[in-house]
Amino acid sequence: MAKFKELRRAYGFDEVAIVPSDVTINPDQTNIDFKIEGLTFSIPVIAAAMDAVSDVNFAILLSKLGGLAVLNLEGVQTRYDNPREVLAEIAQAPQAEVTSLLQKIYSAPIKENLIGERIGAIKKAGAVCSVSLTPANTKRFAPLAAEARADILVVQSTVTTAKHISKSYRGLIFSELHQTIPMPIIVGNCVSYSTCLELMKTGVSGVLVGVGPGAACTTREVLGVGVPQITATMDCAAARDEYLRQSGRYVPIITDGGFRKGGDICKAIAAGADGVMIGSIFAQAEEAPGLGYHWGMSHPHPALPRGTRIRVGTTCPLKQILFGPTSVTDGSQNLVGAIRTAMGVCGVRTIQEMHQAELIIAPAITTEGKSWQLAQS
Amino acid sequence: MAKFKELRRAYGFDEVAIVPSDVTINPDQTNIDFKIEGLTFSIPVIAAAMDAVSDVNFAILLSKLGGLAVLNLEGVQTRYDNPREVLAEIAQAPQAEVTSLLQKIYSAPIKENLIGERIGAIKKAGAVCSVSLTPANTKRFAPLAAEARADILVVQSTVTTAKHISKSYRGLIFSELHQTIPMPIIVGNCVSYSTCLELMKTGVSGVLVGVGPGAACTTREVLGVGVPQITATMDCAAARDEYLRQSGRYVPIITDGGFRKGGDICKAIAAGADGVMIGSIFAQAEEAPGLGYHWGMSHPHPALPRGTRIRVGTTCPLKQILFGPTSVTDGSQNLVGAIRTAMGVCGVRTIQEMHQAELIIAPAITTEGKSWQLAQS
Amino acid sequence: MAKFKELRRAYGFDEVAIVPSDVTINPDQTNIDFKIEGLTFSIPVIAAAMDAVSDVNFAILLSKLGGLAVLNLEGVQTRYDNPREVLAEIAQAPQAEVTSLLQKIYSAPIKENLIGERIGAIKKAGAVCSVSLTPANTKRFAPLAAEARADILVVQSTVTTAKHISKSYRGLIFSELHQTIPMPIIVGNCVSYSTCLELMKTGVSGVLVGVGPGAACTTREVLGVGVPQITATMDCAAARDEYLRQSGRYVPIITDGGFRKGGDICKAIAAGADGVMIGSIFAQAEEAPGLGYHWGMSHPHPALPRGTRIRVGTTCPLKQILFGPTSVTDGSQNLVGAIRTAMGVCGVRTIQEMHQAELIIAPAITTEGKSWQLAQS
Amino acid sequence: MAKFKELRRAYGFDEVAIVPSDVTINPDQTNIDFKIEGLTFSIPVIAAAMDAVSDVNFAILLSKLGGLAVLNLEGVQTRYDNPREVLAEIAQAPQAEVTSLLQKIYSAPIKENLIGERIGAIKKAGAVCSVSLTPANTKRFAPLAAEARADILVVQSTVTTAKHISKSYRGLIFSELHQTIPMPIIVGNCVSYSTCLELMKTGVSGVLVGVGPGAACTTREVLGVGVPQITATMDCAAARDEYLRQSGRYVPIITDGGFRKGGDICKAIAAGADGVMIGSIFAQAEEAPGLGYHWGMSHPHPALPRGTRIRVGTTCPLKQILFGPTSVTDGSQNLVGAIRTAMGVCGVRTIQEMHQAELIIAPAITTEGKSWQLAQS
Repeated sequence: MAKFKELRRAYGFDEVAIVPSDVTINPDQTNIDFKIEGLTFSIPVIAAAMDAVSDVNFAILLSKLGGLAVLNLEGVQTRYDNPREVLAEIAQAPQAEVTSLLQKIYSAPIKENLIGERIGAIKKAGAVCSVSLTPANTKRFAPLAAEARADILVVQSTVTTAKHISKSYRGLIFSELHQTIPMPIIVGNCVSYSTCLELMKTGVSGVLVGVGPGAACTTREVLGVGVPQITATMDCAAARDEYLRQSGRYVPIITDGGFRKGGDICKAIAAGADGVMIGSIFAQAEEAPGLGYHWGMSHPHPALPRGTRIRVGTTCPLKQILFGPTSVTDGSQNLVGAIRTAMGVCGVRTIQEMHQAELIIAPAITTEGKSWQLAQS
Repeated sequence: MAKFKELRRAYGFDEVAIVPSDVTINPDQTNIDFKIEGLTFSIPVIAAAMDAVSDVNFAILLSKLGGLAVLNLEGVQTRYDNPREVLAEIAQAPQAEVTSLLQKIYSAPIKENLIGERIGAIKKAGAVCSVSLTPANTKRFAPLAAEARADILVVQSTVTTAKHISKSYRGLIFSELHQTIPMPIIVGNCVSYSTCLELMKTGVSGVLVGVGPGAACTTREVLGVGVPQITATMDCAAARDEYLRQSGRYVPIITDGGFRKGGDICKAIAAGADGVMIGSIFAQAEEAPGLGYHWGMSHPHPALPRGTRIRVGTTCPLKQILFGPTSVTDGSQNLVGAIRTAMGVCGVRTIQEMHQAELIIAPAITTEGKSWQLAQS
Repeated sequence: MAKFKELRRAYGFDEVAIVPSDVTINPDQTNIDFKIEGLTFSIPVIAAAMDAVSDVNFAILLSKLGGLAVLNLEGVQTRYDNPREVLAEIAQAPQAEVTSLLQKIYSAPIKENLIGERIGAIKKAGAVCSVSLTPANTKRFAPLAAEARADILVVQSTVTTAKHISKSYRGLIFSELHQTIPMPIIVGNCVSYSTCLELMKTGVSGVLVGVGPGAACTTREVLGVGVPQITATMDCAAARDEYLRQSGRYVPIITDGGFRKGGDICKAIAAGADGVMIGSIFAQAEEAPGLGYHWGMSHPHPALPRGTRIRVGTTCPLKQILFGPTSVTDGSQNLVGAIRTAMGVCGVRTIQEMHQAELIIAPAITTEGKSWQLAQS
Repeated sequence: MAKFKELRRAYGFDEVAIVPSDVTINPDQTNIDFKIEGLTFSIPVIAAAMDAVSDVNFAILLSKLGGLAVLNLEGVQTRYDNPREVLAEIAQAPQAEVTSLLQKIYSAPIKENLIGERIGAIKKAGAVCSVSLTPANTKRFAPLAAEARADILVVQSTVTTAKHISKSYRGLIFSELHQTIPMPIIVGNCVSYSTCLELMKTGVSGVLVGVGPGAACTTREVLGVGVPQITATMDCAAARDEYLRQSGRYVPIITDGGFRKGGDICKAIAAGADGVMIGSIFAQAEEAPGLGYHWGMSHPHPALPRGTRIRVGTTCPLKQILFGPTSVTDGSQNLVGAIRTAMGVCGVRTIQEMHQAELIIAPAITTEGKSWQLAQS
């Protein structure tokens, strides 16, 4: 008889829900610290290395609020002396022309001096500074970031593995990079147990989880590639736990992309995330550089763009998105309050305890009453 | 190899259907009594402790019709001498401003004298009086309710457990409360076997089942927390049956929230419910205080509101919603007729026998002919 | 540990597809005879006992085309001397008033003389005559139908079992009825293996399968009761096969309701149906009495109506619906051609061989390309 | 106890996703050759034998770009001296009349002289020439195609098996055909392991996979017949691998139909396809004969048409659809870039290695963020 390929079922945010526990605790009893090497952040929330989200000001502000923003060293901030002008141009472009415009804007060269300048501005304000590079450019620019005293280096591409084969450049060896760059390195993105485990074995300090889920990303349409975030997070969390058993070292995983509301963040943590990387929700902040728009960093690809510009609108200050209080009931504000409250109904005090919460499969489409609510409210 | 978290599939009303039995009986042969301690109600239908549903008049009317309404002691009825004015204000508020308005209205203090007054008015009319409190306020106000001779106390919050840990107040111990308050206590809400079993072991007289399903509730969006009602009811029914085996005491469970039509109620009973708590369907009654609107009691939360105001409209008298006759064919009227008829096709005479009816998984989206019907009718 | 109720997954037409076989045959090689006792029909197609579908003329026409129509003896045909007027009134009623109107129209008494008159008219034309009654009225009216020499009696209600318990009348005993009424009896509806087997053991000549699926039926919304047609048909087909093993007698099953297109009919036969009972597709025929509308027979229930009037439109003559040729590509015409062609790709020559065809679970929502087609055509 | 039919779950493009591997390679390291007998194509892409896609010019162009187009010898190209006029008439017809028009247009006789003329024109340009016939017409027209020196013969109908039973003509015996026609023969369509294996045993050089998935096909609605493409491809790939084990001969399979974007093509290859046959995406090319429209070849059936005309629009040159660069981000352009990039993230160098990539079940409906994107972009 023939051997048929086995297919495993994967789940996204909208397909699961958190089950309350037998014990509840008051939200004010929870501790949601996120740690990476020697650094401790009081909230487990990281702003994505996307040009509509993180710039110098946003990084300073989020650092002061307890989180971390990642500045993209290959975006408009390091290609243009005056990125605000460029960002305004993107916001004003008609939808039909925006991909061509992005392709043009992102073909401008990266100015090495701006790398130091942007990092310096963040550091000068006393904020923690994290910057991102793609694997192909890491060897060239990472030393500049180190020199400017960035605190954390994020090496990020759509799909990153411990082994990359190329004829045009020698693949980036994370274990070597770790020797030469004197700061914690976070790498990603990955979605599977084995890739995550291999990445951790190279000595990195954190792993980003998620391929294809973001609101501004069309990787799944264009390439057919992607794993829904709950399954990806659960697999990588299993790798983290296995690596801890083998090595004694705890390497946090950060679920990156696809969050639309506080409930999604709570689910990612229940699935095993130590931290979450947020794009489109933060693009709605008054302080976000995207002026109410958001787009992915694989969107400007010159030959095979995989993204879309979405209008997210500008709603309120970042502080309110994080901590409330709010009169919005759709889960897009008071994200930290949501995390603490969900932890309360699960009776857990720390993020790591929250990893033990029970998730069930419960498609959002079947939540009772919701169609009525949408039709009539 | 890594240990992957197991995910269990949960089901809501729209995903199951009742299978007719090999024997049928005439609907007039059925008995649908609902009992809680010494009290017997001729229909297993309870109106939710929501301000758009239950006030003094509604409680009197429903008691006379054989059911039970729960008056919320922390809502507008006990914060305002003239709640009608406040309810009209809510009904007239523009949708964009309603959450702020609710937050303001519900920040007014509870007036202790109104607790006695409202209960007194219900009792004076000869009706059974049930009142609700949140766990944090129960110690303070429950004695006043007892003094005013309420018949049943409902202690209710989004998620309630037998053990709550807080630094600001000592958790409510239901076994102690039971000693001091001389009336049956119903507690909730819960959704799992173990929590339900633990709550029953504290000596309570009934348990409310359901987290997140209601039409006016966005707990699942905001916190990611919730269990669809069929699975929640089946789990808690299993706990009730187990507790009966262990203790010899039968503690009824009441499925609370998410009902949109008679068929949903029949399914909840087939899943194991002894009674059902109804919100938005009753908010449509001519006698409902909400004036055609409905909102959840976690909606006015000052920092993290979880709800929405929905327009349900005003359709007909409560009596017709319960008993018909009707010319409406969407299942929103003659709920009691629907229960009896469904029991008839299942060949059962009592609610407890109905717990043995067979449910199958049959997503509503695949019910043949329905898309045509919706498109063309 | 607790015992949780097991839920079985059921499937409807839109969730399955027929898998072609390793051998194909030309459609003109197929034989699609349907037999019930001594009677043979050249097509396995029966018109539903609904007032928008079957009247005297329609019954004569369909008989001549090789099929069978069932005349409802409790509908407008036997309550009104001039049913055309009444049918026109229904067609012209505004949607909001139609349920009340139907309730009023169907409260007129059944005139015994009209039973004989309608049957006589069909028989006089040389057509096979089948009539339907509900169980409660069978003892009273079936003798009249027998006297008028109807050929087949259909005893039909939403849910019919071999045992019905009532205090107002002694349940209908099919084995007794069989003794007194000298014609083949078809009973239904049922949806499960055991009920179907019990019904066959009473000696009936055919069983109708299907509760809740029809386009004009809201039983599932109102009562929560229903089983999707593919699963219902497969279960009842298994009962038929088991009964054949036990008794040596082959009792055909007829899948009733929910058909929207030829593909649905082919799937029902692959699932085990010997014949199909069609409502809304036939209501589209130029000869249908419903004037482009269709409604269910549980719609006019005085206290708990379960149905809706749908506008189906009038498309073409019945003959074209059955045999084509057609220029319509949605599967609503040339139903017989569709059956023969599907049998051809399954390589089978008879309806009974078609019961062995393979079905797979393949939700229509995922059929590739369809969303594009709908959006752009 | 009764024997219930077992139902197997089948999957389509929208229900699965490709999981990235532990190793990645640069897209420029991949080889995507497609081989059939002695012929090698540099891209695994075949244009469907549909009149809106493949004509003489399109076949020449696609051959020069590395792929293969199949000319339908039973379509307008061989029925009309001037097919352009006819195609324009189809494009201009109102939607309501198009099926009748197609039925009329395709009832014109096939002119034998045009077969040689069309093939000659393709060959004269130095292109590889592939032509298609239905089984019933193959004996009559295949010799003419051979005489005109076509390179590949495609024998194609909705469902093709190794054994066809007919009284009007002796079934086509592929093993005999293979003897008399001196060119590689591709046959189809089939969807199952056993049929595919039997077809390969007749000596054919390739098998087409897919029944019912195409955007312009309504076979599933009309007949209920069809298997989603991922499952069909996986089953036929298993047959190919089994046949290779038994015979030592590798017979490629070509997934035909249902592709809407590059991601679908990548998934088909990961499921086991050696090549893909594309219809509606190519109908969008500036060079496509359909003038922005597309329709299926079972659409003009005189008695039971199974198809629809869809408006696909005209977007860009074929070369750009295949190789980009593009500013379109929906996956409809740069298909070859998408294949190479997906292979890169799976770390594979050849199409056959890509067959080992992991697929997961991940319904598109649950891809996070997408509903927002659609609503707001």
